[in-house]
Amino acid sequence: MNYENYLSDCCKNIPRSFIREILSVAEQEDFISFAGGLPNPDFFPVEELKNGLASIFTDTGKETLQYAGSQGFLPLREWISSYYNTKYGMHTKASQYIITNGSQQALAIVSKAMINPGDVVALEKPSYLGGIQALSLNSPVFKQVSLNPDGVDLEELENVILNYGVKLFYAIPNFQNPSGISYSYTKKQELAALLEHYQTILVEDNPYGELHFKGENSAPIVGMLPNQTIWCGSFSKMISPGIRTGWICAPDEMVPWLIKIKQAVDLHTNNIVQRLIYHFLSNHDIESHLQKIRNAYGKQCRVMQNEVIKYFPEGSEITNPEGGMFIWVKLPEGYDTEKLIKIAIQKKVVFVPGRSFFTNGEGNRYMRLNFSNASEGMIIEGIARLSEAIKECEMVFA
Amino acid sequence: MNYENYLSDCCKNIPRSFIREILSVAEQEDFISFAGGLPNPDFFPVEELKNGLASIFTDTGKETLQYAGSQGFLPLREWISSYYNTKYGMHTKASQYIITNGSQQALAIVSKAMINPGDVVALEKPSYLGGIQALSLNSPVFKQVSLNPDGVDLEELENVILNYGVKLFYAIPNFQNPSGISYSYTKKQELAALLEHYQTILVEDNPYGELHFKGENSAPIVGMLPNQTIWCGSFSKMISPGIRTGWICAPDEMVPWLIKIKQAVDLHTNNIVQRLIYHFLSNHDIESHLQKIRNAYGKQCRVMQNEVIKYFPEGSEITNPEGGMFIWVKLPEGYDTEKLIKIAIQKKVVFVPGRSFFTNGEGNRYMRLNFSNASEGMIIEGIARLSEAIKECEMVFA
Repeated sequence: MNYENYLSDCCKNIPRSFIREILSVAEQEDFISFAGGLPNPDFFPVEELKNGLASIFTDTGKETLQYAGSQGFLPLREWISSYYNTKYGMHTKASQYIITNGSQQALAIVSKAMINPGDVVALEKPSYLGGIQALSLNSPVFKQVSLNPDGVDLEELENVILNYGVKLFYAIPNFQNPSGISYSYTKKQELAALLEHYQTILVEDNPYGELHFKGENSAPIVGMLPNQTIWCGSFSKMISPGIRTGWICAPDEMVPWLIKIKQAVDLHTNNIVQRLIYHFLSNHDIESHLQKIRNAYGKQCRVMQNEVIKYFPEGSEITNPEGGMFIWVKLPEGYDTEKLIKIAIQKKVVFVPGRSFFTNGEGNRYMRLNFSNASEGMIIEGIARLSEAIKECEMVFA
Repeated sequence: MNYENYLSDCCKNIPRSFIREILSVAEQEDFISFAGGLPNPDFFPVEELKNGLASIFTDTGKETLQYAGSQGFLPLREWISSYYNTKYGMHTKASQYIITNGSQQALAIVSKAMINPGDVVALEKPSYLGGIQALSLNSPVFKQVSLNPDGVDLEELENVILNYGVKLFYAIPNFQNPSGISYSYTKKQELAALLEHYQTILVEDNPYGELHFKGENSAPIVGMLPNQTIWCGSFSKMISPGIRTGWICAPDEMVPWLIKIKQAVDLHTNNIVQRLIYHFLSNHDIESHLQKIRNAYGKQCRVMQNEVIKYFPEGSEITNPEGGMFIWVKLPEGYDTEKLIKIAIQKKVVFVPGRSFFTNGEGNRYMRLNFSNASEGMIIEGIARLSEAIKECEMVFA
């Protein structure tokens, strides 16, 4: 039997995750991995969650184990709404939120609800591979728009809108994956005005917004463009990714449609973890928890930047993130990070080559480096190994 | 802004769940609900799971809270494979399994991976509404095939295959939702031979297979047609639905494609519950746990059947399930269960009108009655209320 004959076109076309393949290599002993997007497990609140689970099972065991509503646990939706409203002067309501299995599922639901095959989706260049995969589920045509150090290139975006008729613009405005770039406040306002003018929906992916370690410019754009933004968030980087819990916040009129898709794809998000997260948020100070993470990631980022600047070849370019988990490096002309990764693996260090973050095969001088899941010592050692690999790469491919 | 202009065609076309709407009515006090497909919470192993969580967090807290592989927790996949292989003489391997958020997500992933818009999907008449929703995600053309008391009508199915070229046949061969019907062993073998002959893939949905309370004829068809069956299972009815954990078991060649879709839709299933279920299964006797559920559901089913036979109008037809959670009633000519439900709500009893389980608007003489989530007293009282509603319905609509 030829099983490929039974596959859908979109299944054949969704790009594979090079990242997940590298991750399995990186699990071997003695490897240093800058490849994944893993939070530092030292900050997982293991004891607090363990105690939370015990009290949830004692108080509401049967309810917690029964089927639940598709939109998600109301107290958790109220908490999210109130937290962001207070922090960023937004005006969302709990009824606008749907709890999802991380922001990955949020994107997959939006994709399913809104994209017809052939619809044009604009996105940043580079953009998050998982986002590209989720949006690919409904076979759109992608148009990537350059990302400048202060955010997306608005002139280029406007041209794409005018030339192709863009239904959705997918963006990660805070501490972007893979680049670490954040939009300036002005750029956020200008983007909101542009999208409003052209009635283009913004799909705002914001998993890293609370990981700001310099300044506090991480207001989501949804606050500036509430009627046209579908805003996706996640507890993966704030609390734990293994719990797979995030959210969609959408304009009122969109919510019933998105709930219908959530229902069709898996009925509802795991009830234990929805209550667990709510319990954690109600009983602990999330700000002081986040502050510990921010301080650590800020230090790790600085160490990595310093090492890269010291040891990478002249002419390398490096972003300067104010938060998040990644830096993005462009090697001088002539380098190819897909060749480099093979030598890097021999040196027991891994990263993600840039091409995964482009929809058109570009990006082979770039690499994404994750700094959140490595100690300072590992960062220093890992960048040293990587620099060695780069030197060998010169010799081999010169 | 007209948000409907931004919706995908499939989003507009997925049928809404009448069931979930009735469920919210049924949450009001004093209502008796035969509408949902809820397990009896008295059998949720609350204490066992609570203790399991404590030991998982003590032993492997950080690992449990980190990202995990898309295919799912290997020891859990090994357990499922070994349990079914032993029980039904099957020959599956752990590598064929993917852990999903319940069998609803299993169906949604199969839908996404295999259906192109316009592909023909055959399914039983009636069929599970949630299955119809999940398969609708990729806009197939549905062809429903009559369900006889011993399983699907094979002659009719063969005609549909010959006339329309069926890519997938979606079936729930054990204790079907909504009908409670099970395929005979002979029918299972004949179906396997027919599908093999025409190289049609079987999508076998088996959430109720272990809830057999008369006899033991619940072998999945996957054992008879391993190279052409995608088999979906669930712990929702065996342990708890709030944990949202099920599986896909597919031929080796299909697995990488299905994993790619799982990755795109939500990266991986919640890591806490995967480990929790494995811990429960490793430390408790699942057979004795299931036997308690089977005994209770068997009694509840018998009580409901007796009351329906006693009090429903002459000429009503009722199925005789050997397991599962539902009975399926056909009222005599002239009745319309969508009119009946309105009167039933006034009497504070609810069920699901039959039309939700047909893809072509038929079914208005049918109703689905759930017996798993009501005590014997509630069943007796509820059927009495429903009989009153039927009498009033005669008067109102005669």
